[in-house]
Amino acid sequence: MTTLDTLVAGHRPGWSLARGFYLGEGVAEAERARIWHRRWLFAAHGCELPEPGCFVTLDVAGEPVVVLRDRARGVRAFANVCRHRGSRVCTSSSGRAHRLVCPYHAWTYDLDGRLCSDTREHGVEPGSHGLRAHHAIELGGLVFVSLAEAPPPLEGMGEAFARWLAPQGLAGARIARSVDYRVAANWKVVFENNRECLHCPGSHPEYIRANYDIHVLDPRRAAEIEARVADEGRRWQAMGLEAPTLVSDMTAAWWRVNRTPLAPGFLTESLDGAPVAPVMGSYAQHDVGTLRATVFPNFWMHGSGDHAVTTRLLPDGTGHTLVRVAWLVDARAEEGRDFDPARLMPFWQRTSEQDWEICENVQRGIASAHYRPGPFERQRERNVAQFVDWYLGEMAGA
Amino acid sequence: MTTLDTLVAGHRPGWSLARGFYLGEGVAEAERARIWHRRWLFAAHGCELPEPGCFVTLDVAGEPVVVLRDRARGVRAFANVCRHRGSRVCTSSSGRAHRLVCPYHAWTYDLDGRLCSDTREHGVEPGSHGLRAHHAIELGGLVFVSLAEAPPPLEGMGEAFARWLAPQGLAGARIARSVDYRVAANWKVVFENNRECLHCPGSHPEYIRANYDIHVLDPRRAAEIEARVADEGRRWQAMGLEAPTLVSDMTAAWWRVNRTPLAPGFLTESLDGAPVAPVMGSYAQHDVGTLRATVFPNFWMHGSGDHAVTTRLLPDGTGHTLVRVAWLVDARAEEGRDFDPARLMPFWQRTSEQDWEICENVQRGIASAHYRPGPFERQRERNVAQFVDWYLGEMAGA
Amino acid sequence: MTTLDTLVAGHRPGWSLARGFYLGEGVAEAERARIWHRRWLFAAHGCELPEPGCFVTLDVAGEPVVVLRDRARGVRAFANVCRHRGSRVCTSSSGRAHRLVCPYHAWTYDLDGRLCSDTREHGVEPGSHGLRAHHAIELGGLVFVSLAEAPPPLEGMGEAFARWLAPQGLAGARIARSVDYRVAANWKVVFENNRECLHCPGSHPEYIRANYDIHVLDPRRAAEIEARVADEGRRWQAMGLEAPTLVSDMTAAWWRVNRTPLAPGFLTESLDGAPVAPVMGSYAQHDVGTLRATVFPNFWMHGSGDHAVTTRLLPDGTGHTLVRVAWLVDARAEEGRDFDPARLMPFWQRTSEQDWEICENVQRGIASAHYRPGPFERQRERNVAQFVDWYLGEMAGA
Repeated sequence: MTTLDTLVAGHRPGWSLARGFYLGEGVAEAERARIWHRRWLFAAHGCELPEPGCFVTLDVAGEPVVVLRDRARGVRAFANVCRHRGSRVCTSSSGRAHRLVCPYHAWTYDLDGRLCSDTREHGVEPGSHGLRAHHAIELGGLVFVSLAEAPPPLEGMGEAFARWLAPQGLAGARIARSVDYRVAANWKVVFENNRECLHCPGSHPEYIRANYDIHVLDPRRAAEIEARVADEGRRWQAMGLEAPTLVSDMTAAWWRVNRTPLAPGFLTESLDGAPVAPVMGSYAQHDVGTLRATVFPNFWMHGSGDHAVTTRLLPDGTGHTLVRVAWLVDARAEEGRDFDPARLMPFWQRTSEQDWEICENVQRGIASAHYRPGPFERQRERNVAQFVDWYLGEMAGA
Repeated sequence: MTTLDTLVAGHRPGWSLARGFYLGEGVAEAERARIWHRRWLFAAHGCELPEPGCFVTLDVAGEPVVVLRDRARGVRAFANVCRHRGSRVCTSSSGRAHRLVCPYHAWTYDLDGRLCSDTREHGVEPGSHGLRAHHAIELGGLVFVSLAEAPPPLEGMGEAFARWLAPQGLAGARIARSVDYRVAANWKVVFENNRECLHCPGSHPEYIRANYDIHVLDPRRAAEIEARVADEGRRWQAMGLEAPTLVSDMTAAWWRVNRTPLAPGFLTESLDGAPVAPVMGSYAQHDVGTLRATVFPNFWMHGSGDHAVTTRLLPDGTGHTLVRVAWLVDARAEEGRDFDPARLMPFWQRTSEQDWEICENVQRGIASAHYRPGPFERQRERNVAQFVDWYLGEMAGA
Repeated sequence: MTTLDTLVAGHRPGWSLARGFYLGEGVAEAERARIWHRRWLFAAHGCELPEPGCFVTLDVAGEPVVVLRDRARGVRAFANVCRHRGSRVCTSSSGRAHRLVCPYHAWTYDLDGRLCSDTREHGVEPGSHGLRAHHAIELGGLVFVSLAEAPPPLEGMGEAFARWLAPQGLAGARIARSVDYRVAANWKVVFENNRECLHCPGSHPEYIRANYDIHVLDPRRAAEIEARVADEGRRWQAMGLEAPTLVSDMTAAWWRVNRTPLAPGFLTESLDGAPVAPVMGSYAQHDVGTLRATVFPNFWMHGSGDHAVTTRLLPDGTGHTLVRVAWLVDARAEEGRDFDPARLMPFWQRTSEQDWEICENVQRGIASAHYRPGPFERQRERNVAQFVDWYLGEMAGA
């Protein structure tokens, strides 16, 4: 058995992963093959590619990728590697180009990846040597890519995201701010931390004032919260929105989208609950609860009536995770007039940074030979167990 | 034979170690098993843990460790790793706590390591899942830990340290200053450098003015120095101190403690020989020579009548060593009134930094494929040979 | 077959190297054995060692080396590693010493590498334990070293460099400025980029105004350029210089030296073509075209009538290259009076930095699993193919 097989075979359901899953190149290599260079990954917002020729670049576990909008206004992704001498073709993080021209010797590719240059002096056929294509889809204003030859099926995510995210209007939004972090923790530590709120009372004072997560299991509050979900659900359905859910597990194992009420007094996820931007998308008013979407292995989102916050993870070796947190508002909102970043950002900036500190602590503990997998709390950490199960299922095919 | 076996078998007694001992993960892994996660290591001063609940944290070759004083005023050490999700439990370098509370989900441990939290919702027995205990002892005001299941025997070090270090009063001292270094050299290079003074004339002008080391083998001065050792010995024994030794080899191979006179005119190890702090411990006067203690693989100390300087080594990969140098004075001494760091520190700060520069030069030379082990000088480098012999003996069990 | 054998066997002539050649310790180790610790490498300029005892130090793929001028005014190179305890002997980047004295225990070596210290107390013979000698030669004012036991033959380079470089007067020059770079690209990417000018039009606006390289294959200009080479050739031969060449391939595969005209209006390689320093060496006037020398794997030079610019490469792991670019002028030229670095440097500083940016882009693309070797242009990239062929020939012996 390989080390990975041994690790998988030794896993105890309902307990955290063994140390070996978080360390070492062997598991990381299998994760690249099974997860990072295969699964659907959140790459960019559709609104970052407003016109044909607009592109963004990213690095997916060592793979340079360019994502662009083509002339038919679809999204496409390519290996950002010239077929002549291997230079990156697009060297800036974003831009707009009529065609993609390699800065080295000007090999030129159309927006569909076809090589337009004359290669006869290189001894190869004209029309050969196009850019290696990856898969790309745009769902509800979010662009996902898969670097696999044959990507995994979407299992309902396409329809669900289109339907649930439509009123949030991400396609017509713009990024007010984004912050990049390099967190000194394995990406799984970061996602595991996202999948439970048992740690919220001790770590997230801002978050727990606005959200019900930690209260739904409190028998003294269950009836109140259930009633509120029902009331808000009726109100929202009257507005044409989907019905809310009290709690939402992952759908098809690796994605979910759902809406749930915020705590009374919170019209949006801001420090004081007051709006921080104009209503966005097709919402009729601020008070639409919180729209949450999650996609393993690298995306989550929290949408309020006036703004949305997305989080994108990318691995950087086994011990670090690159995280980009972006705040989106309606495209018509103007900074200074309609919103102030100093009011828009703190709720999720603080909550995020509280989480990164936790994750770095966990990474340091997991590195110990004396770390042992521990037992999840049955109810309040069940979603971490579910993430772990999903992960092990993906890795089992390695 | 493994690489390590080949290296050990190829060693030529009386010559320096082969290059392979200083490079590469294979030897470093064996050193962790045989030395760093097994031997007794200096961790902290007892005076850093004045009250029950006081703790310090350190990282021993990748292992996070917390050392604390328990309610019975004994010292204890634990793996600083929560049994729930693996977070470090104590995240600051030092502090005081009634109980140890993990910052992630508030799992709470008593000062004896027992888990106090209710784990029934996690499906495990109450009282299980305590912190992994390491071994800890306090000897003469110095706290040593061993991460082994069964630590090596102390071989007389306990009694000797208690007796020799008592008058220095380390238990009632305080740390006036400490300086942390990251030296770009393998830890063995750093300790080898400490074990000989053949290099002192060219490198340590301050040290050689105050100390006899390099002069004891000078036939013109041998009689004078021997007489002085005898005279000072009589004087110190009258004060209740142990008898001094002219030179002191390691006792039981891996530790030593001894007292020897300073050069005439030096009442303490200061630049000009004049006192730099009030007499400490139970000493009756400044002029008590220099009290030296050494423990392989990570500790040495130089005690004067008015202050003591300790040095702690911890490995950081194969090519770096983390060094903490601490200056201790009597707990009643007040900065500004009783001592001035600008006079207290330079003697050992300069000498230490001169050594780190040497060590970094050696590391760069040893990295060469053209480095060959060289011959130790029979007398004046015999203690390096002894360190090498001890090291090889420890590694032979790997 | 080893990975390296597989890579070599899989190479397609006329196409760029496979990704594996640029990544991974296996190939890098073979390159050290076959190339970096065997081939002749440019180490320093002879004028950096004006007097006996003058030395420079460098690090050749992990090997510390000292190069010096001995008492007979010849050049010598040694492993910069003391035979006693392994310290570097010379610790500064350059200097002058009567003898080489190790800073650790003062072991002292004469300029011919012999140990002068008394080692009887170390149990070894006097006169043993000299510094390990490397090979060194000075050719036309350039010092080359080989770390091999038996260096490869010079294959005519000695005579050619002596004859062609003599009028440039490098032996009587001085370094006006030098700039060190750490380029995030494998050394082969850096040298491959140097071996073609197909990329010049898009990247080097300064260079292409002054040089014919990209125009010699333009049929509309071929006759004009050929005529100019012939005219200038006659003029230069009348001045005692060697005849120019239109294009110059590598001689004996791994070195070349040739002279070719600059574009009309360029008396030197400066931004505006006007002189930037007094005529150097034995040149009678500024207008002597451009004297180019190249030595695989680590040197190239561009000489004008008034200055010369040398480039030295040294590998730093598989992903980085340390580059030193030096500007030399006649030793009698005085800064401020005779030359201004702000006019002397930009031509080659800009061109070099444009190249480093290209190389870093290529390195990032080559790291992709989707990188595939691409076809060289038959004419204008034939010299890259020749470099690749030379490299594969050297590696085949590994």
